Amino acid sequence: MASTLNQKEMAGNQNSWDSLLPDCPKGPLSTYRKKTSFSWKEMAVFIDGEDIIQLKNRIFSALENDPLFAHHPGEDLCREKYQELTFLRCKRLFEYEFLTQAEAMKNPLRFFYMVLFIGMYDWSLSLQLCLHCGVFAGPIMSASKRFGHILEQVYSMEIFGCFALTELSHGTNTKGIRTTATFDPSTQEFVINTPDFEAAKFWVGNMGKHATHAVLYAQLYTPDGQCQGLHSFIVQIRDTKTLLPMPGVMVGDIGKKIGQNGLDNGFAMFHNVRIPKENILNIAGDVTAEGKYSSPIKEVKERFSAALGSLSTGRIMITGMSVTNLKLALAVAIRFSAARRQFGPTEDEEIPVLEYQTQQWRLLPYLAAAYALDYFSRSLFENFVEFFAGVLTKQRSQRQADLGREIHALSAASKPLTSWTAQQAAQECREACGGHGYLAMNRLGEIRNDNDPNCTYEGDNNVLLQQTSNYLMSWMNCIRDKAPFESPLGTINFLQDYHHILGWKFTAISVEDCMDSSVPLAAYKWLICYLLRESDLKMNKERQAGRSDFEAKNNCQVYYCRSLAIAFIEQTALQRYHDYTHDPSVPVALQPVLRNLSALYGLWSLSKHLAVLYQGGYASGEQPGKFIQDAILELCYRLKDDAVALVDVFAPPDFILNSPIGKANGELYKNMWGEILQGNKALNRASWWAEFCINKPVIGRLRSNL
Amino acid sequence: MASTLNQKEMAGNQNSWDSLLPDCPKGPLSTYRKKTSFSWKEMAVFIDGEDIIQLKNRIFSALENDPLFAHHPGEDLCREKYQELTFLRCKRLFEYEFLTQAEAMKNPLRFFYMVLFIGMYDWSLSLQLCLHCGVFAGPIMSASKRFGHILEQVYSMEIFGCFALTELSHGTNTKGIRTTATFDPSTQEFVINTPDFEAAKFWVGNMGKHATHAVLYAQLYTPDGQCQGLHSFIVQIRDTKTLLPMPGVMVGDIGKKIGQNGLDNGFAMFHNVRIPKENILNIAGDVTAEGKYSSPIKEVKERFSAALGSLSTGRIMITGMSVTNLKLALAVAIRFSAARRQFGPTEDEEIPVLEYQTQQWRLLPYLAAAYALDYFSRSLFENFVEFFAGVLTKQRSQRQADLGREIHALSAASKPLTSWTAQQAAQECREACGGHGYLAMNRLGEIRNDNDPNCTYEGDNNVLLQQTSNYLMSWMNCIRDKAPFESPLGTINFLQDYHHILGWKFTAISVEDCMDSSVPLAAYKWLICYLLRESDLKMNKERQAGRSDFEAKNNCQVYYCRSLAIAFIEQTALQRYHDYTHDPSVPVALQPVLRNLSALYGLWSLSKHLAVLYQGGYASGEQPGKFIQDAILELCYRLKDDAVALVDVFAPPDFILNSPIGKANGELYKNMWGEILQGNKALNRASWWAEFCINKPVIGRLRSNL
Repeated sequence: MASTLNQKEMAGNQNSWDSLLPDCPKGPLSTYRKKTSFSWKEMAVFIDGEDIIQLKNRIFSALENDPLFAHHPGEDLCREKYQELTFLRCKRLFEYEFLTQAEAMKNPLRFFYMVLFIGMYDWSLSLQLCLHCGVFAGPIMSASKRFGHILEQVYSMEIFGCFALTELSHGTNTKGIRTTATFDPSTQEFVINTPDFEAAKFWVGNMGKHATHAVLYAQLYTPDGQCQGLHSFIVQIRDTKTLLPMPGVMVGDIGKKIGQNGLDNGFAMFHNVRIPKENILNIAGDVTAEGKYSSPIKEVKERFSAALGSLSTGRIMITGMSVTNLKLALAVAIRFSAARRQFGPTEDEEIPVLEYQTQQWRLLPYLAAAYALDYFSRSLFENFVEFFAGVLTKQRSQRQADLGREIHALSAASKPLTSWTAQQAAQECREACGGHGYLAMNRLGEIRNDNDPNCTYEGDNNVLLQQTSNYLMSWMNCIRDKAPFESPLGTINFLQDYHHILGWKFTAISVEDCMDSSVPLAAYKWLICYLLRESDLKMNKERQAGRSDFEAKNNCQVYYCRSLAIAFIEQTALQRYHDYTHDPSVPVALQPVLRNLSALYGLWSLSKHLAVLYQGGYASGEQPGKFIQDAILELCYRLKDDAVALVDVFAPPDFILNSPIGKANGELYKNMWGEILQGNKALNRASWWAEFCINKPVIGRLRSNL
Repeated sequence: MASTLNQKEMAGNQNSWDSLLPDCPKGPLSTYRKKTSFSWKEMAVFIDGEDIIQLKNRIFSALENDPLFAHHPGEDLCREKYQELTFLRCKRLFEYEFLTQAEAMKNPLRFFYMVLFIGMYDWSLSLQLCLHCGVFAGPIMSASKRFGHILEQVYSMEIFGCFALTELSHGTNTKGIRTTATFDPSTQEFVINTPDFEAAKFWVGNMGKHATHAVLYAQLYTPDGQCQGLHSFIVQIRDTKTLLPMPGVMVGDIGKKIGQNGLDNGFAMFHNVRIPKENILNIAGDVTAEGKYSSPIKEVKERFSAALGSLSTGRIMITGMSVTNLKLALAVAIRFSAARRQFGPTEDEEIPVLEYQTQQWRLLPYLAAAYALDYFSRSLFENFVEFFAGVLTKQRSQRQADLGREIHALSAASKPLTSWTAQQAAQECREACGGHGYLAMNRLGEIRNDNDPNCTYEGDNNVLLQQTSNYLMSWMNCIRDKAPFESPLGTINFLQDYHHILGWKFTAISVEDCMDSSVPLAAYKWLICYLLRESDLKMNKERQAGRSDFEAKNNCQVYYCRSLAIAFIEQTALQRYHDYTHDPSVPVALQPVLRNLSALYGLWSLSKHLAVLYQGGYASGEQPGKFIQDAILELCYRLKDDAVALVDVFAPPDFILNSPIGKANGELYKNMWGEILQGNKALNRASWWAEFCINKPVIGRLRSNL
């Protein structure tokens, strides 16, 4: 086999792995680490590659060695201080400049991972940077070369940016945005106005305390009184010398959130705020000096898919962020489960909770998901890089437009899939660590709370899924006409066999038969064709019943289009991971464990659709369900001894993971105890002791008031 | 019909309802309130009764009128201040004395609701009171009359109590507790010791800052060196005059938690701490002056079931707490959904998001669950009151022992069912409110975070479910032998028809046919018999394969015993709610909506088991699944116009609910805007502004360090 190495090569690799990746400390987890079927260092290098591991090491060691990034165990950081600290740290990141523009351009994956690695340390910090350098700077970069000087100010932090789209009363429905930008030809300015506080810009990250400039979305009005639709503008909101609001701007902080409290989300209202004409981001349209509207992209459809593709940036980043949270939560919970002992076969002997079937079943499918979805999110980012290169070079081909649509459909479902998976995993991990999982210092609450908005921003998950099902439904005409079709990334090509696939059945005849991801993959393909047919039938029925398009679509979501979109994205992720893990170039020593992960992820995801497989006749009788369940449990069992090493592959260093029960040494009680004794006034008598000791309550004194 | 009232009676009722329950304010929610099929006041009186509503009004108005309980919008309360405030408020509750001992004794349901009503305001406060008056005082009360003086000190707050069972390295497995209490006959004292910090008492509520006394669990050693097992003792841990630790006690606060941060959870280590012999809580056993061990309950089995029943107190309280969280989250999310408009059939018209099928399907099944589980939790508490009366009167009958076992089996599953339902609902409600649900002021994060430990304390949910499945499996011998059997509450009596039920099939032939809870009830009965048979078969197979009891049981959890316990408790809850809603004494006007709720809860819960219904042959073909899904959607549609009123029934006053988007007036934007402007320094420039404006970063300055 191509990947079989001779002894000398192995030794050479071992040396290079050791220089990249330090050994794990000895301790309670050593037993599991010794039982592992593979080398975690080999796995890490295989998955991430040396370049990304070096970037990771560079970032993590810089943060660990810089006192500005030190943790303060036991300290009760108030929101204001946390915001200040986040900003100072963000500034410091500019001084580290982990990636130059050129380095990021050469391999954009580095930028993707930089955001995620900093996020492993703290999402507020990572998002603050990302909102400024990516979400604010991105549309400016795509707009026109005339904004070059602004980009320079972005990268030198002379200005600080935010992206102001949503309003207090409008989020998902961006067409309902009510802020206005009216062109005044007499001064060659746009005049920005907020009609009332319900149209205040709201939820905008970085706007609360720091942003000096905003990419602001407003309805463009030409002097003839015509509304030309939503356009974006660069608007200065704070003075760069004093950080005080610009005249006519009321800007503030929206207050405490469930998580991400280092980030300053803000609101803003505008009263006749004037900006120069050049500040329109001329992507969708522009205005002449006389005030006549013109749009550079003539074809509405092309214009639309150009916009669609770009909307995917945020969703693909969030896909990566969610997978990162999945990894963090699992690192904590699996190390805990391998070190925590409770009950046992005899009175004297307690066994690690990871040995229990229930604990394996609660955690290991999520571990498989972390591996499969990590690969998927990276591959999706690479697809996006290809697309974005076309955007920057102003590609106008059909392929570019098709690619935009396909990536839009994928990212609109990958965000729901990964953010929900991470959310559920964080909750399961929290519970799997019992009470200790509920202690803030162990970080599972923070992970869950910081992940939560991934389900919401850049489009509510349920609403986004409609984009994906719309895309899938759009192929029904081709399918019905048996016309040939394909997509640039090929994700929908199997639908060409729609009629054939609908005749498939579950054919495995033993548990062993089910232990490869090809089994769930086949079932998924049938499932998608079935749900596509059912959704199409349902939609036609609704229309025939006289419902409007709007109503018909709404009535086809639950159990139909929504399930379709979810099944499709799970299948796409699984297909990619299946192909990846079954590629002959995978090192031999890693093949078994990777294929087990692929099979477990596939079967476990599929098992949530089991009822539909029966309902539609793909499965019948007791066996299919039992085989799938037994295979899941058997795969969990086979993976349990590898679980600690699988987590070592992606767990960040202890300093970054910042969880006593998740530390690599597995000494959970010593780690916790040490941190508890650092607690602010942990051992001190309460300052209000006299309220108990001297000022005794008079029982029932206030009863007569009731 | 008995419940049909004449006009005059109706008018009289209306008056009495109006005096008990104020009208809802006019506003954006009025449209829905007008469309309601029933009177929410009639419903409230029917469900809670006047007595409980009066108690509720008394508590809520006292809190609202007392500045000590005022909210401080926009203030960033640090943990220390929150703990202080919670304690001061707890003290104030003694001065209000909402219930005297006698009132609580006369109707113990009042105590149950008092805890829940205070919890609606703040769980930390409610738990602090409950831990002191219930969890600490409870076992002292059941122990012996010689502790009468201690109980007096409890109710006069001369001492403050906590319940110290779990240790740093042992929670669920209480047999592994390692704190020791060694009897010293020379001084007639017990000597308490903690062998090492891993055996430190840990997670103990009220212990962090306030408790002066603990009910402490330790291994009892007699002078002959024999360990007599786990016993409980009253141990003073802090001086009541100074609140300083007693000699030999190291006591402190365990630090910040994910939620419930007003409550001071603590740890304690003991070094030769001496307590008088009388301080043993002589429930399980006692020691003579010479140091000989004696146990008052001779029969081990009887002793065990006595203990079991008492363990249910906490779980039943948590069941009620979880249902309360379910109500709070829904009150916020449903009012939001009825007021928030987004998208619409035309460009100009936006419709409330509650009109969308997806939103209905996300929220309304939880609303049905809130109604069904509320009734279930109350009925379970009433069962417990019956049992506890037997404990206090030292009942030794077979029925009392059987009742103990049955209540144990029910509460061990009702806690998982309700705490998970509330957890999922809180997450769904958070997401259903989009970004605004993520804003801390709207309270959904607090509800979720405060509910979270309900899944863990008083036994991890997954571990507890084993207690229930063990109970169910214990009837297999009777079933196999076709011997007659029944339980005091009758929850397992249908298993007498086990062989018959296993032959049942899904027989509904239309969607309309499925719209009553009798359909899911029948399916549940089959499901339980099927899972019981499968679990029994699996267990025998494991044993035949040579596995120990310990291993065999562990290998039968996932997909077998665990599913069995969940199906059983869902069925029990549904059966009780079905009977309640189908009782002819239900007022005619309330029958339709209540039966819809019962059907929706039943079908929706059942739908999660649909695959097993197919797998086991209860259902086959496309129709059963489709009927159930269509019925769920149809019931959601029928309930949507009642949803706001259904929430008005249980939502506490605005002051208690404390959520701008959840206020009864439905003016979500005005409510939020007002509160945001109260934000601490919301509009102020950041105090660290100079860090941006003057101290500019030198880009890449630290790059060479990397």
